[in-house]
Amino acid sequence: MNRQEKIRACVAEYEKQIIAWRRDFHRHPEPSFCEERTANLVARSLKALGLEVYEGIGKTGVAAVLEGGLPGPIVALRADMDALKLAGESESEYASTVPGVMHACGHDGHTAMLLGAAHVLTKLREKFPGKVKFIFQHAEETAPGGALAFMEEGFLDDVDAIFGLHLRSTLEAGKLEIVLDKPIMAAADRFTVHLQGKGGHGSQPQECIDPILVASNIVMNCQSIVSRSLDPLDAGVISFGIIQSGSAFNVIPDKAYLEGTVRSFVPEVRQKIKEELNRKVAAACSMYGADYRFSYEEGYPPVNNHEKEGQLVLEVGEKVLGPSNVGIGRPWLAGEDFAYYLEKVPGAFFFLGAGNAAKGIIYPHHHPRFDIDEDVLKPGTELLVNIAWEYNEKGVLFPF
Amino acid sequence: MNRQEKIRACVAEYEKQIIAWRRDFHRHPEPSFCEERTANLVARSLKALGLEVYEGIGKTGVAAVLEGGLPGPIVALRADMDALKLAGESESEYASTVPGVMHACGHDGHTAMLLGAAHVLTKLREKFPGKVKFIFQHAEETAPGGALAFMEEGFLDDVDAIFGLHLRSTLEAGKLEIVLDKPIMAAADRFTVHLQGKGGHGSQPQECIDPILVASNIVMNCQSIVSRSLDPLDAGVISFGIIQSGSAFNVIPDKAYLEGTVRSFVPEVRQKIKEELNRKVAAACSMYGADYRFSYEEGYPPVNNHEKEGQLVLEVGEKVLGPSNVGIGRPWLAGEDFAYYLEKVPGAFFFLGAGNAAKGIIYPHHHPRFDIDEDVLKPGTELLVNIAWEYNEKGVLFPF
Amino acid sequence: MNRQEKIRACVAEYEKQIIAWRRDFHRHPEPSFCEERTANLVARSLKALGLEVYEGIGKTGVAAVLEGGLPGPIVALRADMDALKLAGESESEYASTVPGVMHACGHDGHTAMLLGAAHVLTKLREKFPGKVKFIFQHAEETAPGGALAFMEEGFLDDVDAIFGLHLRSTLEAGKLEIVLDKPIMAAADRFTVHLQGKGGHGSQPQECIDPILVASNIVMNCQSIVSRSLDPLDAGVISFGIIQSGSAFNVIPDKAYLEGTVRSFVPEVRQKIKEELNRKVAAACSMYGADYRFSYEEGYPPVNNHEKEGQLVLEVGEKVLGPSNVGIGRPWLAGEDFAYYLEKVPGAFFFLGAGNAAKGIIYPHHHPRFDIDEDVLKPGTELLVNIAWEYNEKGVLFPF
Amino acid sequence: MNRQEKIRACVAEYEKQIIAWRRDFHRHPEPSFCEERTANLVARSLKALGLEVYEGIGKTGVAAVLEGGLPGPIVALRADMDALKLAGESESEYASTVPGVMHACGHDGHTAMLLGAAHVLTKLREKFPGKVKFIFQHAEETAPGGALAFMEEGFLDDVDAIFGLHLRSTLEAGKLEIVLDKPIMAAADRFTVHLQGKGGHGSQPQECIDPILVASNIVMNCQSIVSRSLDPLDAGVISFGIIQSGSAFNVIPDKAYLEGTVRSFVPEVRQKIKEELNRKVAAACSMYGADYRFSYEEGYPPVNNHEKEGQLVLEVGEKVLGPSNVGIGRPWLAGEDFAYYLEKVPGAFFFLGAGNAAKGIIYPHHHPRFDIDEDVLKPGTELLVNIAWEYNEKGVLFPF
Repeated sequence: MNRQEKIRACVAEYEKQIIAWRRDFHRHPEPSFCEERTANLVARSLKALGLEVYEGIGKTGVAAVLEGGLPGPIVALRADMDALKLAGESESEYASTVPGVMHACGHDGHTAMLLGAAHVLTKLREKFPGKVKFIFQHAEETAPGGALAFMEEGFLDDVDAIFGLHLRSTLEAGKLEIVLDKPIMAAADRFTVHLQGKGGHGSQPQECIDPILVASNIVMNCQSIVSRSLDPLDAGVISFGIIQSGSAFNVIPDKAYLEGTVRSFVPEVRQKIKEELNRKVAAACSMYGADYRFSYEEGYPPVNNHEKEGQLVLEVGEKVLGPSNVGIGRPWLAGEDFAYYLEKVPGAFFFLGAGNAAKGIIYPHHHPRFDIDEDVLKPGTELLVNIAWEYNEKGVLFPF
Repeated sequence: MNRQEKIRACVAEYEKQIIAWRRDFHRHPEPSFCEERTANLVARSLKALGLEVYEGIGKTGVAAVLEGGLPGPIVALRADMDALKLAGESESEYASTVPGVMHACGHDGHTAMLLGAAHVLTKLREKFPGKVKFIFQHAEETAPGGALAFMEEGFLDDVDAIFGLHLRSTLEAGKLEIVLDKPIMAAADRFTVHLQGKGGHGSQPQECIDPILVASNIVMNCQSIVSRSLDPLDAGVISFGIIQSGSAFNVIPDKAYLEGTVRSFVPEVRQKIKEELNRKVAAACSMYGADYRFSYEEGYPPVNNHEKEGQLVLEVGEKVLGPSNVGIGRPWLAGEDFAYYLEKVPGAFFFLGAGNAAKGIIYPHHHPRFDIDEDVLKPGTELLVNIAWEYNEKGVLFPF
Repeated sequence: MNRQEKIRACVAEYEKQIIAWRRDFHRHPEPSFCEERTANLVARSLKALGLEVYEGIGKTGVAAVLEGGLPGPIVALRADMDALKLAGESESEYASTVPGVMHACGHDGHTAMLLGAAHVLTKLREKFPGKVKFIFQHAEETAPGGALAFMEEGFLDDVDAIFGLHLRSTLEAGKLEIVLDKPIMAAADRFTVHLQGKGGHGSQPQECIDPILVASNIVMNCQSIVSRSLDPLDAGVISFGIIQSGSAFNVIPDKAYLEGTVRSFVPEVRQKIKEELNRKVAAACSMYGADYRFSYEEGYPPVNNHEKEGQLVLEVGEKVLGPSNVGIGRPWLAGEDFAYYLEKVPGAFFFLGAGNAAKGIIYPHHHPRFDIDEDVLKPGTELLVNIAWEYNEKGVLFPF
Repeated sequence: MNRQEKIRACVAEYEKQIIAWRRDFHRHPEPSFCEERTANLVARSLKALGLEVYEGIGKTGVAAVLEGGLPGPIVALRADMDALKLAGESESEYASTVPGVMHACGHDGHTAMLLGAAHVLTKLREKFPGKVKFIFQHAEETAPGGALAFMEEGFLDDVDAIFGLHLRSTLEAGKLEIVLDKPIMAAADRFTVHLQGKGGHGSQPQECIDPILVASNIVMNCQSIVSRSLDPLDAGVISFGIIQSGSAFNVIPDKAYLEGTVRSFVPEVRQKIKEELNRKVAAACSMYGADYRFSYEEGYPPVNNHEKEGQLVLEVGEKVLGPSNVGIGRPWLAGEDFAYYLEKVPGAFFFLGAGNAAKGIIYPHHHPRFDIDEDVLKPGTELLVNIAWEYNEKGVLFPF
């Protein structure tokens, strides 16, 4: 039995426990910065393994360090623990018991797999080269995110590489996808526009500055930012999520409010969209005599994988899942604060498919009926263990 | 002392009482269909005069009939009694004591003047030819209005003519304006648009039908109804009062809502605007694949004065206010259910200025700081009495 | 036989001649500032009457003065002589013989009637009080128009009042309409917009500033000037007549051109539209980074009748045409340089119906099939003669 | 001296000739389907080499077959020969002598290099394995293009692979770029929109259907096709190249015309854009009551390289130009009828940089000052010869 087979066998022993953990987390979801129960459970379990455990990182983050029996580099594995403020519609036995909160993005699975990986690696530690840092990160869903706290505490300073896995219900269970030559996840920003017109009676438009007209003009004209101002080969999205003005049918209101999100993969596109949004708002106001306040908050940067670490994920993936299940995929236009880690440390972030139409697991992330195929928790745990092992092993052979 | 002088003297005796009534109404405003206190006070006062009084017309309307000492026609005088659901900002001693309700349209003055006119006419009844019907109407501000109730009860059936006066803070105190060859007040309608798009994640517009874009398109394109579809010589207004969609910056919502008002003076314009609004909404939805529900509620029709009765108002006005204070004015694009009376009975509706910049009475109707110059209550009462008298007198000379 | 009957009889004698003149002018139309043949014919005819004739006013204008046998004021009657650069489609025996030029606005009829009036008044001059100045004006159709030349030469300086008649095919033959309390004809202006974007390959919008998008934005947003910036009771029109950009399907052009017209009746509206047009153009360019040149040329001002002279037209009209054929009409949104005369001298301008559905005379002015019912030339001439006579007669009784 | 060195030496002997050919073609440009002089010159030169030459393919296409001294596969090399209808602004000694026609896309260089390659290969034919088919294609610039003619004549039927090179002034001289996992060049389509409104006088919009407004609405709303209807990860372009309506400032025209281009890389995007364009046009017309004719002509499909042949280009490129000058580039959103060859036969199409800022060669393709750095003609010829040789050699070792 080679190492990979030993890992597989060892993960198999923990599979039921991993599923149980995942269901427990799913039943008791906690939103960003409130992951107390989850963090406690994780920390207790890691301490029981005899690992060096750090709690309260950035409020609710947890970390642990495992030292292998052999010398080698330091690799970090990261899972995120927070749930969403979303009223679930699951009818499963493990449905959320917390009204208005739900694990609708798979972080429960991430945490369970990483906890499983910690158990497996502890069991096999004797022959493990170097160290593993387990990062159970809080608050991925809510800016400014939890990743920065781990970095500010210096937890990444001695790390040679970091790896993260994201389950995806929109990818078939058991498939691994990664993106290498461009970002795998997008920069996700937020903007707001407060418009100040001049209100009045609905029968006297000439005495007013109609903010509904100005807002409509902005929405219409911002379409051209994507269609005309960006290189057609560059991806960019501007979506208005909120438009709001007025409270009576026969009164021209004095204010309007717009809020939306911007997605991009490269800084030039992000900057261009930001500038053009501001320009469109300013010009629309000048066109109608309105005033405005425009704010633009940059969210997480895009997630850029490192070439070597990304190739290692592909290699390990082919071994664990079979070559036909591993490949280069398309970027995902959502944001991820894993981006911060990769700005500082080499590493890779990848998707593991968790959708299964035959089982009715077809809903997208953030959907009230979102779920994952739990059968992927086992190979997912194997991936984490193998990636850590192979990365550190290579580091021994060809020291950094 | 001729008749007009006698009337003036008699009104002068009641002036303080009229102002007191007005202030009492102003302190105790009651919204449409809730004018109970006002109606009671009015009815009691009319009964005390020995008039034949009708209460509870259309819930809170009050009417009274005065029979003159001489034979003659039947003339009706109308005042409206309801206040607005509006939080006033008055600092006067007679400011509203009811939170969120305010006499911000002058109906308190209308009621006080008509009550004064009833007292004066009762006092002078011996030589008065014919009858006067006093209509203290409820619910002018809220469709379907109170006028229809008076008509349904047959109260207008034997009336030869009806007259109504509206105080206007945007016209200088003591000026009378009327409009004769076209409507003096507009048709005021309400429309709603419910848009059904398809929601989704802000990063995936291609999976969605963006209702904010559809709503913006509708607002932009409806501008052309006024600018291109109407005869430039015809007045028409379309104002959107409400636009609403979405609740999260990064989610494309599935619905949007628009609500607004339409103003017009002639049926063709009203019909044209209604059709074009519907057409614009339908086409915008077809353009983007959205669905919609469009509703259009016709409010009061335009107020069309009758020529002969309008001329009588001008003549009386010149006598009471002086020729330089009387003239043909511009229509007002607000609505009035006095329109219904004039569709059935000859008559006229006119404006009496109640603004006074020197006294700080400069706020438009429906404004939280609206007020009237109380000095106009006296000539206003004179106008009502004289109009009734001259109308009936002419009817005796040249029977209808 | 009273005076009016004598005039009628006298006009009747000239009717055939008047029709012959009109047909002659119709066959030989001459565009603005080129009315040489017409002017010669007119001048010769006036000289033959023994009148004092002035030629070459402002190049091709003609004037004549008739002195009556009695003392009195000086009244002016004006006709315009120019035709349009328009390819007619008439099949009548008197169709235009000049390719691309046509009397499609009725000026041939105006000239013929005024020439007829000169003949009639000359014949009846003995009892005519005061003087008549006949103004055969050139170049009404083309800014800056011919009226200013007559004024600059001082020809109006001693005139007490001026009257002008315009035939209208859109009004039933024999009906007279005038507008008194507001302009009878509009201010008609012209604007141009040159847009400078940045051209490039159709596949590279990000390198370009797309002037077609900017032009479209301007057209869309200018709709709101009429719908939102003007008082709904004020008439105003903005029409784009030309949009032009690009010459190849796969090239983003660098320039776009817009041209249009503005109509208004009052200076505030004209000024407001001009300012808002400029503002919309500037803002659209700022929105997309384009440059522009905006020009606005004010055409003729609105035609404002004077009250007393307008009433005289109504009175004379009722006598000549019968009361049921005379009334207050709606303004016409076309322009007229008669406006300049009325800015300096009292007077009135009015419409005489010349349409006749039964005869197929149904086409609007400036249409290639435009025509007039020649039966109105006789009453039209009567109107001119009577107006001059009654005006001057009143001036004798109540000297100015 | 290995083979590559021999080829380099042999090309060096022909370099002057190749440059001379290129300049000759540049001086005598011929538009698509009119390449008679060019075709004659090419055919004569090929015949002089003793090759089997085919003329008049699809009117002006030329082909030749060279048989090597050894057995092997059949490889095709293609150059395009046509120039553009474009007035050049070159001041070089070899500037176009034909007014309004110019080699502004580098086809002169393509033809010269392929002619050079034919000479070199003929000289070295003894050791060459298999055959080379030289395709001197006409009419690349003008749909339906010349490629289809070569295929219809069966000229590609026995070909094992085809290669094509495109010089690019926007890429640094001596750099080679290819795209492998997606199209290297786009589908380039053309659409037209004829709008039928209803014309009339500029002062009477209510009687008209304003086609300028409809056209503007279409331009504005089509922006959202790219911004909302496409997957942000898919490239797509819609550019309007022509907008045209009206001829007089004061007349609302009855027609408007739009023409533009669409670029895309995948059939789903192409289809989506086509459908949405039609939908936007239809809805805009329904919004304003206009009629339309919409046409959409599909141009060349996207150019999809084959993996194995693309890798061979990269390998040869690294040897000829050095590894640092060869890489994966970005697609070009222009069209190419080389696409048709690759739909039938394996092969690859690639870019060779020909820009040189130091020499002032900075203008993009289709620009009146476009030029190429002639120093790249030598390595370009080497690339063609080496690609043919290595391809056929591999085919001998591992027969297809």
